[in-house]
Amino acid sequence: MNLVRTFSDARASYKGTVALVPTMGFFHEGHLALMTAAQNSADTVVVSHFVNPLQFDNPADLERYPRDVERDMTIAEEAKVDVLFAPTSVEMIPQTPLTAVTVDGLTDTMEGVMRPGHFAGVATIVTKLFAGLQPHLAFFGRKDAQQLAVIRRLVLDLSFPVRVLAHPTVRESDGLALSSRNTLLTSEERLAARELSQGLFAAVTAVEAGERNGPRLESIVRGALHSSRPDYGELASQDRVERLSELDRPSFLAVAARVGKVRLIDNIAFDLAAGEVVADRGLRLKHPSLLYR
Amino acid sequence: MNLVRTFSDARASYKGTVALVPTMGFFHEGHLALMTAAQNSADTVVVSHFVNPLQFDNPADLERYPRDVERDMTIAEEAKVDVLFAPTSVEMIPQTPLTAVTVDGLTDTMEGVMRPGHFAGVATIVTKLFAGLQPHLAFFGRKDAQQLAVIRRLVLDLSFPVRVLAHPTVRESDGLALSSRNTLLTSEERLAARELSQGLFAAVTAVEAGERNGPRLESIVRGALHSSRPDYGELASQDRVERLSELDRPSFLAVAARVGKVRLIDNIAFDLAAGEVVADRGLRLKHPSLLYR
Repeated sequence: MNLVRTFSDARASYKGTVALVPTMGFFHEGHLALMTAAQNSADTVVVSHFVNPLQFDNPADLERYPRDVERDMTIAEEAKVDVLFAPTSVEMIPQTPLTAVTVDGLTDTMEGVMRPGHFAGVATIVTKLFAGLQPHLAFFGRKDAQQLAVIRRLVLDLSFPVRVLAHPTVRESDGLALSSRNTLLTSEERLAARELSQGLFAAVTAVEAGERNGPRLESIVRGALHSSRPDYGELASQDRVERLSELDRPSFLAVAARVGKVRLIDNIAFDLAAGEVVADRGLRLKHPSLLYR
Repeated sequence: MNLVRTFSDARASYKGTVALVPTMGFFHEGHLALMTAAQNSADTVVVSHFVNPLQFDNPADLERYPRDVERDMTIAEEAKVDVLFAPTSVEMIPQTPLTAVTVDGLTDTMEGVMRPGHFAGVATIVTKLFAGLQPHLAFFGRKDAQQLAVIRRLVLDLSFPVRVLAHPTVRESDGLALSSRNTLLTSEERLAARELSQGLFAAVTAVEAGERNGPRLESIVRGALHSSRPDYGELASQDRVERLSELDRPSFLAVAARVGKVRLIDNIAFDLAAGEVVADRGLRLKHPSLLYR
């Protein structure tokens, strides 16, 4: 594995087609699934590793975001990643950036409302990664469904020759979506955290029984939150992130809640196949995540 | 010459290193100078040809902006341009863009004030050209000094692996900076238009006599405008576009004025060489510009 610190060193290490897996590090099986998908699709896999300060609206959240570069290097090495791009802060943000990338319309609900400036921070850093690393493919997790919509739109609007591919959410054995932030939960909070996925899966059961009404699906999700403080439960279209009164197109049912000091998000994507609604439940680990190794 | 309509066709036509000359068409000797500079620096020269609606704050200005693709194809062919990228509107802007690129700080004076939204339009389309065309080098005229600062900053902030090169302004024989908009002037207005460069050259004479005071240089420029209506006359630093009270660093003295319905801009760049101030007067044509051919 090549560990590189600069964009030009990353580009110099490429052979053939290049797939990018953008990450903020502290790898879990969700990241590993993206790395594997990338390896199956391209000659060179470059994993970027940078905790992007621009996308944190809350300084305390940025401060406590888990970081362990040594751990991540070992995991990336074991995963046979070709290039780990772990830029220094100076390489990534040499001075206060004056340039910002914004994506309107898709960002005025859910995470866009709860975390002001978050998506501008994401869009700016992803533009920078696409500009500087010039990948042919880029892999993102479906857990960040609104982010995925933002990035797909950004690629279209800015004509980046990058194919954006989404991968199902990877979950712990009890359903909790993997997130580096899960390591910040106390054991009591860890139990409460199950409410997010439990509500989503209850809604999937309702969908499979024929429920298509948006507000009713949203109430099922919010109704499951007892020990966690809900931020939102919302059904929205996958492309435009427009709230849906009916589940009649590719969509996602999203939930966000605060468990202690930790803010968690999750969602289930609904796709249409031959007129049928198909829920993407994600993948479920049978063993404890490497987050707790 | 390859005439291409899509980003992917443009990229498929490259051999070796690639230099981009972004234009809005209706070529004049300023564009030809950029094409020649590009040919001297790269294996493939791609000239983009698109009147960018995003950068026009005034619909009437967009409407009357001169256009003649047949004329421009002939000129580009004669100039031995390798690739003329003349995208259709649908290729360039398939739907109302939701993504915008902004550059703060450098854009809150001069053109940024006079043309609200102009630099966001420029930054967005240049980001798109850099993203979609992936040039190694890009050539811009020094006539648009504030735009040059914006693009240099954008490249830095977004880590585009593009070297931005600036070329001196090309002027008609009486000093008027070449601009496609010059063709919109009546013969009376054409005479009045000389006031912009006359004021700038008078200021250069003062600088060469030792004048370094910003406001005094600005008054010389504004004092030359009699038949044209001044928008501004301003001395600013080249990198941060900060107004200068003293000419003590790389800077440009800029002027903008309205002549009839046509808005014109011009500037003289001042560089420092071994402690000496050197004015970039640009290049001057000895014959009528091909604008009038």
